Amino acid sequence: MKDIEIAQKCTMEPIGEVAKRAGLTEDEIDQYGKYKAKISLPLKDHEPTKRKLVLVTAINPTPAGEGKSTVTVGLADAMQLRNKKTMIALREPSLGPVMGMKGGATGGGYSQVVPMEDINLHFTGDMHALTAANNTLAALIDNHIHQGNQLGIDQRRVIWKRVVDINDRALRHVVVGLGGPTSGVPREDGFDITVASELMAIICLAKDIADLKNRIGRIVIGYTFDRQPVTVDQLGVTGAIAVLLKDAIKPNLVQTLAHTPAVIHGGPFANIAHGCNSVFATKTCLDLADYTITEAGFGADLGAEKFLDIKAPVLGKTPDAVVIVATVRALKMNGGVSKKELDAENVAAVEQGYANLRKHVQNMQRYGLPVLVALNRFVQDTDAELQKIQELCEQDGTKAFVCDVWAKGGNGALELADAVVEACDKKTEFKPLYGSDDEVEVKIEKIVREIYGGDGVEFGPKAKKQLVQFHKLGWDKLPVCMAKTQFSLSDDASLLGAPTGFTIHVREFVPKLGAGFLVALTGNVLTMPGLPKVPAAMGINLTDEGVIEGLY
Amino acid sequence: MKDIEIAQKCTMEPIGEVAKRAGLTEDEIDQYGKYKAKISLPLKDHEPTKRKLVLVTAINPTPAGEGKSTVTVGLADAMQLRNKKTMIALREPSLGPVMGMKGGATGGGYSQVVPMEDINLHFTGDMHALTAANNTLAALIDNHIHQGNQLGIDQRRVIWKRVVDINDRALRHVVVGLGGPTSGVPREDGFDITVASELMAIICLAKDIADLKNRIGRIVIGYTFDRQPVTVDQLGVTGAIAVLLKDAIKPNLVQTLAHTPAVIHGGPFANIAHGCNSVFATKTCLDLADYTITEAGFGADLGAEKFLDIKAPVLGKTPDAVVIVATVRALKMNGGVSKKELDAENVAAVEQGYANLRKHVQNMQRYGLPVLVALNRFVQDTDAELQKIQELCEQDGTKAFVCDVWAKGGNGALELADAVVEACDKKTEFKPLYGSDDEVEVKIEKIVREIYGGDGVEFGPKAKKQLVQFHKLGWDKLPVCMAKTQFSLSDDASLLGAPTGFTIHVREFVPKLGAGFLVALTGNVLTMPGLPKVPAAMGINLTDEGVIEGLY
Repeated sequence: MKDIEIAQKCTMEPIGEVAKRAGLTEDEIDQYGKYKAKISLPLKDHEPTKRKLVLVTAINPTPAGEGKSTVTVGLADAMQLRNKKTMIALREPSLGPVMGMKGGATGGGYSQVVPMEDINLHFTGDMHALTAANNTLAALIDNHIHQGNQLGIDQRRVIWKRVVDINDRALRHVVVGLGGPTSGVPREDGFDITVASELMAIICLAKDIADLKNRIGRIVIGYTFDRQPVTVDQLGVTGAIAVLLKDAIKPNLVQTLAHTPAVIHGGPFANIAHGCNSVFATKTCLDLADYTITEAGFGADLGAEKFLDIKAPVLGKTPDAVVIVATVRALKMNGGVSKKELDAENVAAVEQGYANLRKHVQNMQRYGLPVLVALNRFVQDTDAELQKIQELCEQDGTKAFVCDVWAKGGNGALELADAVVEACDKKTEFKPLYGSDDEVEVKIEKIVREIYGGDGVEFGPKAKKQLVQFHKLGWDKLPVCMAKTQFSLSDDASLLGAPTGFTIHVREFVPKLGAGFLVALTGNVLTMPGLPKVPAAMGINLTDEGVIEGLY
Repeated sequence: MKDIEIAQKCTMEPIGEVAKRAGLTEDEIDQYGKYKAKISLPLKDHEPTKRKLVLVTAINPTPAGEGKSTVTVGLADAMQLRNKKTMIALREPSLGPVMGMKGGATGGGYSQVVPMEDINLHFTGDMHALTAANNTLAALIDNHIHQGNQLGIDQRRVIWKRVVDINDRALRHVVVGLGGPTSGVPREDGFDITVASELMAIICLAKDIADLKNRIGRIVIGYTFDRQPVTVDQLGVTGAIAVLLKDAIKPNLVQTLAHTPAVIHGGPFANIAHGCNSVFATKTCLDLADYTITEAGFGADLGAEKFLDIKAPVLGKTPDAVVIVATVRALKMNGGVSKKELDAENVAAVEQGYANLRKHVQNMQRYGLPVLVALNRFVQDTDAELQKIQELCEQDGTKAFVCDVWAKGGNGALELADAVVEACDKKTEFKPLYGSDDEVEVKIEKIVREIYGGDGVEFGPKAKKQLVQFHKLGWDKLPVCMAKTQFSLSDDASLLGAPTGFTIHVREFVPKLGAGFLVALTGNVLTMPGLPKVPAAMGINLTDEGVIEGLY
């Protein structure tokens, strides 16, 4: 049975009931249909006894798939089965990959969050509100330039790009303002995908409305003719942009197939943005449940690093345990097996590909965190292959648990759940990767050497120029959000396993003063994906009775 | 007190209660927050006894304002006070004017629909779903061309434009696909405002999901190198676009300040699109209430003409009565008074400007419909001025009612409500303006001569070429959607009153096969507005407590 069919067969609990079980009052939620709700913040008088945080991350993704969301959901359902008060904090899917190739982000099989169609499509409108707010700001900038340009904005140095929540390569590089003097000032421009936008980062990091407005106000949209940064506050439209985000900042409540409450909010990609669900979402779960299972995007080199170095300081809490998801198939691919040969048993390839898993485990241990490995079982996996990974983990001092959450839901991760509970009770001391006073170059150097396993970093001509500028402007101690391919620990997607001897190439920075970090673009990573030759859109249908088919 | 303050002081009824009073069961609605709901179609077993339809339209708008939505809401509240089972069908506001100049579209004073902030901002996400669906289709088209172009689409002849729900003049004319071979095929392109998009027309005219899909499938997105039209069905993505609109086709339920149920759905502008709320919305009200008060955009030359010639045939019902809204101030401006001299009494100017009102009254009578005039009172209006209009109307065989709905709500329109009830009981015979078999040129000629009062129509070189093509393709008998300035009966915004001796200039057609009509662009009308020097956005704020200020 397909994921969507399993999801459609499920009898969901009315969202008011889910909210009640989570400890939310009727006043604290706003229903969006019968099975979704927005949570009104701040919450009052909820005090769980434990507040344990579990971060689920993964090895580098391969075309074979890892099922990180599936494990996250299955683990939470397993914790519920063990009578632990548990909630899930996840990111919202982007329409781009849903219509393109990757599909949605609601788990799979019997470990899904539902209603999967709504979550994967418009959900409660957060992505669209962000798109509208982002592009309203863009229109206000171009209008300012067109209407006399009182601030003296250099139209060649506007860095605020428009966005769409669509994989649209034709919008990567455009020229706007054509058509003569009544249609604006011509300039080169480009569109990013919404999940890469600074406003997305802002709603994911804001602590309250005042903080939201402060962050919006200090966004740098470009530079004047004499190279001074221009902010949204200077444009005088901070309030309007904040108003457009007034509902988007509220976390969304849904449920798993087993009715575990799940908060899904914010959706930055981990390769081009900071890759974590919102501080609001995680905090809501921490405030309501004893155990919060949360997820960071792509591999631990991207999502988890950003969770620990960017999100955790704002959240004011580091994880009590880390779960790293791996699959036999993905390790085989890391060990050099091609996609069509994945079904044949190949213990040697598993052993070779294990290098990737080991590196990610070591990276998380480097932060001083207890690490568990979840082996997400596929039907083709053999016992010999699974045992090999468990042995290798054992040798390295980690424990790997075979999970069968796709087929069995929470019942497929009970052992892992018990280990997570045990790990959470240990006392840990978090060791940050870099100090907040480290300069940008040092921060990147530390990420490259200690997390990626590279030899160092090389700054391209544009990045070098920008670094000079950042030092002048006092932006040189901001945290760094690396934009890098998700497929490798390096910035070259073809280097699998645990490569060494490589250098990371930073070609350009995008300063995001509202988010509070600098994005470093490495290799040839793009902030606007394209669609494949046969996009997923071609397989999607709506029956005359209103049933959705072909959504993944 | 400002409109937003009046709205924020109102105690709204929970939307479930409003739905119940409207006759909807719990299963028939999906709540979006506490005060908005989507209505699930089709409705079953509702059979009101009357099914009367009242169309509210207006004279040509002026900067003085007419308050058509305010009168629509006030009239409905008055009908409720008279114990008539009444509902309202309105369009959804566009964010563009909300952030720009015109403001929202939720009425004013004590005649508003609420929650006004939500309705004027993202509401239930329909505009955003349309934007996403429109731009997903655009990305799929450019991707098709980029990935081998199997259908042989001529990139110079793609007519499917991208949209944003924002006044963004810099996007009117753009070049996309720049940046080299990995970023698509370069071509000239442009963005329209979402409310002008064909998908907006489609959700406003679709009868059910099957019809929605048929309409999407036959959209012509451009032409091949040998000049053959290419449809969405040929691209194979009809299902995906329909899925993105699955919730947007459901009408939205809200309430007036006096708790009259209001359905707000679909938002095409009347100057560049067909200007009426959805068939779903109007039909829902007709199915539930005895009296449905609905509104068409801008003046009767645009909104009402399109209601009667485009929407009514799909709806299968014509209005039982028409209310034309006018104000002393707007008639004065039509009589040549400048905006800053509006406050001084000027009966002569009122008399001169009356020509505009008379023309619109005659136009509606031409369709065989009973017409009533609503004079929307402003505090500066003098009795002499109001009486003059009433006298002039009387002489022409119409009755004009002074309404004070801004200050008094429904109590300000009781006389009008009684007259509307009386008018609805008369038997009328609808006389269509043109026959469905008339050719395009004839249809336009009839609109220009009989509605606008012009001498005829002149087709520009591009339009002439297109007409030849349309005759070949068999599109020559489609209805016509005129895109024309709203400020004049002519295509020249400066000709006020009831001009004569003018010609309408059709410069270009946009064929909309999914909507089922041809858009005729006249004069210099634009399908993407711009922002003013001081946009409304600059006065909008969100307090730290989450209260919105400065929204109109």
